[in-house]
Amino acid sequence: SRSINLAVIPGDGIGQEVVAEGLKVLSAVLPQDVKLETKEYDFGAKRYHATGETLTDADLEQLKGHDAILLGAIGDPSVPSGVLERGFLLKLRFAFDHHVNLRPSKLLPGVATPLAGQPQIDFVVVREGTEGPYTGNGGTIRKGTAHEIATEVSVNTAYGVERVVRDAFERAQARPRKKLTLVHKNNVLTFAGHLWTNVFTKVAEEYPEVTTDYLHVDAATIFLVTDPGRFDVIVTDNLFGDIITDLAAAVSGGIGVAASGNINPSREFPSMFEPVHGSAPDIAGQGKADPTATVLSVALLLRHLGYESEADRIDTAVAADLTERAGKPARSTSEIGDALAVRVAG
Amino acid sequence: SRSINLAVIPGDGIGQEVVAEGLKVLSAVLPQDVKLETKEYDFGAKRYHATGETLTDADLEQLKGHDAILLGAIGDPSVPSGVLERGFLLKLRFAFDHHVNLRPSKLLPGVATPLAGQPQIDFVVVREGTEGPYTGNGGTIRKGTAHEIATEVSVNTAYGVERVVRDAFERAQARPRKKLTLVHKNNVLTFAGHLWTNVFTKVAEEYPEVTTDYLHVDAATIFLVTDPGRFDVIVTDNLFGDIITDLAAAVSGGIGVAASGNINPSREFPSMFEPVHGSAPDIAGQGKADPTATVLSVALLLRHLGYESEADRIDTAVAADLTERAGKPARSTSEIGDALAVRVAG
Ligand SMILES: CC(C)[C@H](C(=O)O)[C@@H](O)C(=O)O
Ligand SMILES: CC(C)[C@H](C(=O)O)[C@@H](O)C(=O)O
Repeated sequence: SRSINLAVIPGDGIGQEVVAEGLKVLSAVLPQDVKLETKEYDFGAKRYHATGETLTDADLEQLKGHDAILLGAIGDPSVPSGVLERGFLLKLRFAFDHHVNLRPSKLLPGVATPLAGQPQIDFVVVREGTEGPYTGNGGTIRKGTAHEIATEVSVNTAYGVERVVRDAFERAQARPRKKLTLVHKNNVLTFAGHLWTNVFTKVAEEYPEVTTDYLHVDAATIFLVTDPGRFDVIVTDNLFGDIITDLAAAVSGGIGVAASGNINPSREFPSMFEPVHGSAPDIAGQGKADPTATVLSVALLLRHLGYESEADRIDTAVAADLTERAGKPARSTSEIGDALAVRVAG
Repeated sequence: SRSINLAVIPGDGIGQEVVAEGLKVLSAVLPQDVKLETKEYDFGAKRYHATGETLTDADLEQLKGHDAILLGAIGDPSVPSGVLERGFLLKLRFAFDHHVNLRPSKLLPGVATPLAGQPQIDFVVVREGTEGPYTGNGGTIRKGTAHEIATEVSVNTAYGVERVVRDAFERAQARPRKKLTLVHKNNVLTFAGHLWTNVFTKVAEEYPEVTTDYLHVDAATIFLVTDPGRFDVIVTDNLFGDIITDLAAAVSGGIGVAASGNINPSREFPSMFEPVHGSAPDIAGQGKADPTATVLSVALLLRHLGYESEADRIDTAVAADLTERAGKPARSTSEIGDALAVRVAG
């Protein structure tokens, strides 16, 4: 019989609320014969304040035993900027080699967008997750003086770039439009830019059916608001991916519906699924948070574990729910979760 | 008697066409007693192909003798990516210490925007121009092999950050709303992020009338499409500034109207003014390019040289012209230039 052994990290702020709804929908969608085991972990601001710990080696050992990880949100204004980001979120991505950061953007009919004319949007960003300016490489000298110098080193390897580029080509190949856009800034960041461009061009030869193009990151942000329909699959560096996926979320329904997967495709380590949004302390505990992004992250999780039809059922339920929402009064976090749970079960 | 000794660099593609209109409007707006001298330089793809040169030490010596530089656009697909960018554009910014890269965004009534509901947009980005990931610091080993490693080093100094932050506070202080937003990614790029944040906080103490806030660059892109009216002055790093100013241009009338100044505030070297757009080889030579961004760059140039009322006249003329355009058939490059020249003279 089948089973899913899930690590659950509600985290901070609205993380608690949205994860509860994610689990509600997960339980509702799974067939009877699939045994769902969950173990909750208390990572985040509270544990950091209590113990000074963000993510220990022992924690990582424990997490390794799971099939996947569902995370709500980590971060709180009471913790200095960077401590939980570097100490937990990025530490986990690096430790578990989550080199494919998958972020789909789809604007569903009737869903609000800041763009005029309700454009067609349906693309997925494959963001590199373990290199670039995110490695923590760099440093500071003469800190706090008028002569302080701080550096940040973007590290890019042929190994790291090729595996994520290859993953993106596979995804493009599997989609009807079969189009892949490389986003970088190869006219200024010429060292990393040439590596990305050369690897991309080389791997492209193996995928003759995939149409490719290249955009500088600045130009990509223009197209994301003037012609988002031009995108099918985008592959890009860690930092550029961070920036353009927030913009992509904003134009395709908002971060309330933006899901993401931090994926280790080799399955050597469990992959982690989380909404793109943060912990939103300003609305935490009020039942106002939209759990949809978390529910869609559960769909990505199911797809990763091979539960394709269950993932499809969630996507369909969310699409129907979003279309129905238009013009209606806002529902609470749990009302949305309940509605989605009913839909996926039905 | 007064005089302006201007270096003119038409450059590649539509650069030639738009610069001609910029000069037309400049001549029309200047009072009789101001002597305008111009010297044209042939930098760009053509010279590179003919001589292999992009910008020599002798060129820099000559350029130093001018009061300011007006540039159209540099770049052509026939030149490998990076050669003219690093060899001309960035070389000039670095050689002349253009550390304030000024990019205003104003959405004028009636002007098309991809955003729904025609929001109020009126802000200016002060982008650092001589540091960050733009220094060319970094390198490649094992090039072209499966073990290639490429690095890009973002270099940030207290000296470099403080002067641009100070410039931004001065500009915020001089505007009615007196609001300044720092944009960075200090939760991930913690070395550079802390330097920027600390310097910003320290300088803020000297400007008690200026309201300040901070946004991560990813969040800033969201607000640029969901609530661009929240911005007054933004100060940011070289790369983040590159990205958000293209997005800012896209939402506030398009890159056809986005102007910029590469400013050396100490006036040790001439400052350089250019449209944000590139050389657009696809429409070059067809009279289709919009010269408005160049004309607005001329206004920034005049303001920098102390010709405030002439700069105001250009801004007013452009605003009137843009409002009149709405719904009318497109005019040619020179028709727009003629119309603006008539307006500023009248
Ligand atoms: C919180 C931060 C470390 C993170 C990132 O920059 O990757 C977030 O912005 C994201 O996009 O997941
Ligand atoms: C062409 C390139 C070097 C330049 C930059 O990245 O600064 C351009 O994009 C700009 O914004 O002026």
